[in-house]
Amino acid sequence: MKGIDWKTFQRLRGSEKKEYFMQFGNIFHVIMSQQFDRKFLDEICELATKIRGISKGNKGVKFLQSLLQGKRAMLYFVQPSTRTFLSFMVACQILGIQCSEVRDTSTSSELKGESQEDTVRTFSSYVDLIVMRHPQAGFAERIAFLLHQIGRPVPVINAGSGKDQHPTQALLDIYTLHRSFENYGGIDGKKIAFVGDLLRGRTVRSLVYLLRNYDGVKLYFVAPKGLQMGEDLKKYMSEQKVVFEEGEDLGEVIPLVDAVYMTRIQDEYDEAGESKRIDYSRYHFNKEYLDILHPNAIIMHPLPRRGEIPVEIDEDRRAIYWRQVRNGMWVRVALIAKIMQKDRDITEY
Amino acid sequence: MKGIDWKTFQRLRGSEKKEYFMQFGNIFHVIMSQQFDRKFLDEICELATKIRGISKGNKGVKFLQSLLQGKRAMLYFVQPSTRTFLSFMVACQILGIQCSEVRDTSTSSELKGESQEDTVRTFSSYVDLIVMRHPQAGFAERIAFLLHQIGRPVPVINAGSGKDQHPTQALLDIYTLHRSFENYGGIDGKKIAFVGDLLRGRTVRSLVYLLRNYDGVKLYFVAPKGLQMGEDLKKYMSEQKVVFEEGEDLGEVIPLVDAVYMTRIQDEYDEAGESKRIDYSRYHFNKEYLDILHPNAIIMHPLPRRGEIPVEIDEDRRAIYWRQVRNGMWVRVALIAKIMQKDRDITEY
Amino acid sequence: MKGIDWKTFQRLRGSEKKEYFMQFGNIFHVIMSQQFDRKFLDEICELATKIRGISKGNKGVKFLQSLLQGKRAMLYFVQPSTRTFLSFMVACQILGIQCSEVRDTSTSSELKGESQEDTVRTFSSYVDLIVMRHPQAGFAERIAFLLHQIGRPVPVINAGSGKDQHPTQALLDIYTLHRSFENYGGIDGKKIAFVGDLLRGRTVRSLVYLLRNYDGVKLYFVAPKGLQMGEDLKKYMSEQKVVFEEGEDLGEVIPLVDAVYMTRIQDEYDEAGESKRIDYSRYHFNKEYLDILHPNAIIMHPLPRRGEIPVEIDEDRRAIYWRQVRNGMWVRVALIAKIMQKDRDITEY
Repeated sequence: MKGIDWKTFQRLRGSEKKEYFMQFGNIFHVIMSQQFDRKFLDEICELATKIRGISKGNKGVKFLQSLLQGKRAMLYFVQPSTRTFLSFMVACQILGIQCSEVRDTSTSSELKGESQEDTVRTFSSYVDLIVMRHPQAGFAERIAFLLHQIGRPVPVINAGSGKDQHPTQALLDIYTLHRSFENYGGIDGKKIAFVGDLLRGRTVRSLVYLLRNYDGVKLYFVAPKGLQMGEDLKKYMSEQKVVFEEGEDLGEVIPLVDAVYMTRIQDEYDEAGESKRIDYSRYHFNKEYLDILHPNAIIMHPLPRRGEIPVEIDEDRRAIYWRQVRNGMWVRVALIAKIMQKDRDITEY
Repeated sequence: MKGIDWKTFQRLRGSEKKEYFMQFGNIFHVIMSQQFDRKFLDEICELATKIRGISKGNKGVKFLQSLLQGKRAMLYFVQPSTRTFLSFMVACQILGIQCSEVRDTSTSSELKGESQEDTVRTFSSYVDLIVMRHPQAGFAERIAFLLHQIGRPVPVINAGSGKDQHPTQALLDIYTLHRSFENYGGIDGKKIAFVGDLLRGRTVRSLVYLLRNYDGVKLYFVAPKGLQMGEDLKKYMSEQKVVFEEGEDLGEVIPLVDAVYMTRIQDEYDEAGESKRIDYSRYHFNKEYLDILHPNAIIMHPLPRRGEIPVEIDEDRRAIYWRQVRNGMWVRVALIAKIMQKDRDITEY
Repeated sequence: MKGIDWKTFQRLRGSEKKEYFMQFGNIFHVIMSQQFDRKFLDEICELATKIRGISKGNKGVKFLQSLLQGKRAMLYFVQPSTRTFLSFMVACQILGIQCSEVRDTSTSSELKGESQEDTVRTFSSYVDLIVMRHPQAGFAERIAFLLHQIGRPVPVINAGSGKDQHPTQALLDIYTLHRSFENYGGIDGKKIAFVGDLLRGRTVRSLVYLLRNYDGVKLYFVAPKGLQMGEDLKKYMSEQKVVFEEGEDLGEVIPLVDAVYMTRIQDEYDEAGESKRIDYSRYHFNKEYLDILHPNAIIMHPLPRRGEIPVEIDEDRRAIYWRQVRNGMWVRVALIAKIMQKDRDITEY
């Protein structure tokens, strides 16, 4: 199987791709949410919590920083990003990894006519880990494949690709749900509403793929006509026996659920200003909804937000989107530690 | 007082604002020059000198780097800057702080419609210190206030805001004066000329606020018509009993003073090319002035310069603007150490 | 000699310039390939190999990182670059040097009318080493000279200047040749073909200057009419008794040589689209050439490439351009270690 080409590789199933990658040693790429199973999710949540605890003491901070001293990561972010970029950078810093970055292709050799494959291959020569955000769906996987082909495999983490996938955002959402429901029976059996532009929001797509790993979960998709969840994902959920309902009325759904996941409209993907014809204010979390939301329920948002959640909601203790930001940092530390095979050192600390 | 809003906060006096911030623990923001008193200035100068000494040996360098290992700073610089940015970055490196940076808002989430408050709040989630340069006067204070409101206070340092304030530049100027007059009775009683575009130069404004802390200082404002020191500052000095004189003739003033503080014309703030109608060459430090300047006097400049000081002046030992650059680094190390409560570790070293 | 001016300095011979710099202590600048002699090249190759070995173990990695802890470098890259920039950054990280960078002059004080000399002088205030890429030939040397003049000498490394020089690329090419021919008698006596745009490719120019240090080397310059090696270099080689031949037919030369050094067309230096009138495909390394290339010969390329070498060639074990990339990192670590006087610590490890 070693000598297969890109086209053959693309036709493999998930488990076969994993097998392909494992031929070259214990290299672990993070490409898409579908690759994570329940065991992995439980481990990563536990690891993140352990790391948060360790980092509270001075000695722990130094222990974490010593774990990957001398290792180097490349942050290749050729799509605008603040939150995810900084989150990964800080996660690397916490583990003692040194970062270099490419954010603006105008300073790069692509100007001189180099292919993207050659560019990334060059980076891989210098580093032990590549984190990449790229507008093109599937690009991270193509690079992971290429690095194996050329015999210098380096772990690749997909930090967002086009409208498609954002698996580490999904992990941080899972970790947030996990922490929030820790004393309420965990994620199993919870009812979760997803609100807004579900068609084009990759964070929701990535999270939904993960939720099939939990028992008895029920999802509500609340979206304007034309922005409802894509058919591919609905088909996937039916196959995976995940129960879901579709609707347009947010106020009706709020009293029913344990978590409300708000999203902004993704008008950067508009083709002809179609967002302007939608009354998106119906998909805002208004102050009066606080009264009908269950006392133990939570309000999530991947951020950045526009008007979906007014700033005054922030003070409600069920609004946990700012905690999501911190969780994102911890879960990325956990993920990198696992990829770089330092998870055991941490759990044994 | 905890629940006050931004408008109420803005109407507070300096000491009340300080009290407000102190409610949340020992958090120290650097917002404006007016907040520094003589005791603070003397301490920071001593601390900077101590740090310079420590850093001369290899052991000292490692001691300094260990002080804040595991801490992280965000450099949020959305106005062009070389000197100040690098100076802060290096100051962090000296203390073992890891930096992340935002310099170009085009790579940030602001593109996606996020408010500046949300953007900065996101950064604050990842770091222990925020250093910010922003075109808008008062922005650093607004953020400091916001971070307290949301219960996640992180120290904020104003690294320059619009035409308004640049308090750390003022600190480095004070430190430069302090070092230069160490053997000549200190800053008290010294005569200092400020030359050039005094209306729009925030470095001069910030420094003048600090000079009220010294006894018997006399200031000379030498500026073209239309660019004289602002009325607000002159009023402030009268209230604070700081003696000053205004004039237009540089050659007349030079023999009288202990320090000449040159500045460039700030034509980036022109509204209709008014700078072009001014003969700014009258506010250049010409070579012949070296003969009439007192042998122990000093020539300062915040840099960058244009033609205000010809390069040949650099060789005169009274020209100390390049030393100002180094002083800026040391005083920022001292300031950060103080904010992060490591000043005692340093003085006891 | 201390007080000489820039014009006088420029007229000095290489050995005199070196003497000038040495007056100020043991400061070592890397300006141009001509400054390296055989002894230096042998030492740097050995040092690079030693460092590669040390870095294989965890203990070695930590040893290397401790060598220059507390030192700071400025990467001043105002010309587009990915490879060289990252290579230097990573080299600094390996030795524990902290980096700051200037890549985009639009964020710098040059906007405010500052001279480049003042800008770089500012940087030199903060750091212990300056690495610079600049479009202007001779700029690195001018800065090195200036820093001596002002009494704050800091080592300067030229990381590429215009069409002129790229001495560290030449060093990595030498190191690649050195490693490849280690078991075949070394570089002495080898036949090397240079192919493509030899007129404007600074990497080839810089490498050829170094090859005069080896005995019995023979060079073949294979280039389209109008892009042949410049007269200045051919004159230099005649003086240095380096044997060379010029030609246009790549297929004819390949069977004769031990190394083929391919280059891309440098059309960014075109004055009126002259590159478009050249059939550059005649200077591509086609697959059939693999059959006529000697089994122990090597194929080099400074990268980035366009079509000069098809991707399928990469799999041939004589294609070593990706190894060049890694060699570049190691040789830069060695060079910086030598400049910062840590070479003995390394060889004694």
